[in-house]
Amino acid sequence: MTTLAVDCMGGDHGPRVTLAACRQFLERHPDARLLLVGAPEALKAFSHPRASVVAATEVVTMDDAVEVALRRKKDSSMRVALQLVKDGQAQAAVSAGNTGALMALARYLLKTIEGIDRPAIAYPMPNAKGGATTVLDLGANVDCTEQHLLQFAVMGSALVSALNHVDQPSVGLLNIGEEVIKGSDVIKKAGELLRSAANSGDLNFYGNVEGNDIFKGTTDIVVCDGFVGNVLLKTSEGLATMIGGFLKEEFSRTPLTKLAAIVAYPVLSAFKNRVDHRRYNGAALLGLRGLVFKSHGSADEFAFGQALGRAYDSARNQLLDRVQARIAHARPLLMGPDAEAPAAETVINE
Amino acid sequence: MTTLAVDCMGGDHGPRVTLAACRQFLERHPDARLLLVGAPEALKAFSHPRASVVAATEVVTMDDAVEVALRRKKDSSMRVALQLVKDGQAQAAVSAGNTGALMALARYLLKTIEGIDRPAIAYPMPNAKGGATTVLDLGANVDCTEQHLLQFAVMGSALVSALNHVDQPSVGLLNIGEEVIKGSDVIKKAGELLRSAANSGDLNFYGNVEGNDIFKGTTDIVVCDGFVGNVLLKTSEGLATMIGGFLKEEFSRTPLTKLAAIVAYPVLSAFKNRVDHRRYNGAALLGLRGLVFKSHGSADEFAFGQALGRAYDSARNQLLDRVQARIAHARPLLMGPDAEAPAAETVINE
Repeated sequence: MTTLAVDCMGGDHGPRVTLAACRQFLERHPDARLLLVGAPEALKAFSHPRASVVAATEVVTMDDAVEVALRRKKDSSMRVALQLVKDGQAQAAVSAGNTGALMALARYLLKTIEGIDRPAIAYPMPNAKGGATTVLDLGANVDCTEQHLLQFAVMGSALVSALNHVDQPSVGLLNIGEEVIKGSDVIKKAGELLRSAANSGDLNFYGNVEGNDIFKGTTDIVVCDGFVGNVLLKTSEGLATMIGGFLKEEFSRTPLTKLAAIVAYPVLSAFKNRVDHRRYNGAALLGLRGLVFKSHGSADEFAFGQALGRAYDSARNQLLDRVQARIAHARPLLMGPDAEAPAAETVINE
Repeated sequence: MTTLAVDCMGGDHGPRVTLAACRQFLERHPDARLLLVGAPEALKAFSHPRASVVAATEVVTMDDAVEVALRRKKDSSMRVALQLVKDGQAQAAVSAGNTGALMALARYLLKTIEGIDRPAIAYPMPNAKGGATTVLDLGANVDCTEQHLLQFAVMGSALVSALNHVDQPSVGLLNIGEEVIKGSDVIKKAGELLRSAANSGDLNFYGNVEGNDIFKGTTDIVVCDGFVGNVLLKTSEGLATMIGGFLKEEFSRTPLTKLAAIVAYPVLSAFKNRVDHRRYNGAALLGLRGLVFKSHGSADEFAFGQALGRAYDSARNQLLDRVQARIAHARPLLMGPDAEAPAAETVINE
């Protein structure tokens, strides 16, 4: 039996979406149990033999500052869900709430794994091969050292091995050229460290990759600092939205183009399905002593269900043990000069 | 009369594409003159009263190292075209050759404008408003200080004011959130500097923008360091290619979908035209004592013609004077602690 703690109040839509997704999830996973965290009156309509409600009187809103989530709302659904993981009552927590608050609360309650300075956010992005490229970090860590990038690579490998059943997934280092002499000092040093990790059997390091390799699917994992990761994620979302908008506008321009849209409907909907980012919903917060998954705030029932599915698969495939084992194995390399420095302030943003 | 020096040998296709584009350009611009630089035998078939051939015996290939372009191929078409600008025989140079070599040769021959530490590459990216967002730097400068980012903002403003006839185009600072407290130290300091520049009338500073704002067209200009710029450009190219590939695949899947493609053809080609990156070909190398435009290496006749057109418009609208005047005006702000530091090695990559 795998138990997930679900923050039912988080996200743009709250229980209307999260509960519907939970119901479908339970139907599809007969050995799963859910702890539904939130205001009892909002959740009372939900009844299922493998679900129980855990009361929480407060909700962290999308606009709440991290301090509010940490210091003021001590009985928030987000916090209670994380506490259930800490207490061992659930194997993973899922929330569609405020990313910054979730990361801060998760760090505070669960703490980081030994050998990890900073947790990272790993996000699957669709690629031309029909799969997904896991990119990290996507927004948690603005300035990264080469040690941090190595930690991200090791944790990303654990995630992909758990979810995609690839023993040694390939890792690319995001850079502005394939040659080893490219990039900033940190990137060049990270390249050396990742090559050492490949030599010691810690990683399957492919080498430098460029922005377009993410969508080509050149490697299973792409590692970058959180600033670059956040920019590339939002740039991609913006471009996809613009292209989708143009396509829609052209097909709705005149009665004739609307007719063409009807004829092309099956093709357009197959296309839409292939670029549907909802399928890839569910970012992993890696490096914590507990499994936490973040759904997009605007997730609908289908998308939230995907995040639940990823959390469930990760728990069943011992993601936490895998991360810990890999980090322990890579420990000699992670003990670099910067590894013991106190973690800098993290700035997170959805 | 405006004269452009054209490196006819550069790019993936060489004279076949560049000459065809030059002919069309001359037909459309009755007061333009072209200096066609390259191997005389490759250019001898071209004859036009407002064009003359300037011989160059060597060609910088797409794979040539910067050193080869600088020290060995001293009679390359790229170098001769830049020398014509330096000598005042042409108002701007256009090349589809190797970006790294072009930037290095341009810096070496033309030198930077007083007050500019590092030239930047400014690239127009299409936006949902139907125009383009000018993004810089796109690949020349890996590590940037806040002073560099201010220089980019001032130069980008000069470019957009010259090409789009907007007196004070708006500038956004690329960040991972809109709030001023977001981002790395350099980004936060750059934000302060850009706000000072807005107060002194040097800039129309909008504030922080995020990756998706580029395609929304929130501001006319988006400023970032060359690492982030290169990643976002290539990520966008990769995503657009993937989406285009999916659409094509879906429409060619079966005889029925192929029929749908025929019915939808006018719509699909209107759509294709809207996302056609060729329309935006022609990146400006800003900060040099001469105008230099870089066409994409794979440019076809239409795309190369767009780069010629941008170079021509820039020359006619006194881009060089505008950049110099704006930099001179912003000089008190640019005299920061790092402004006098020697320029670091630039790593450029197409």
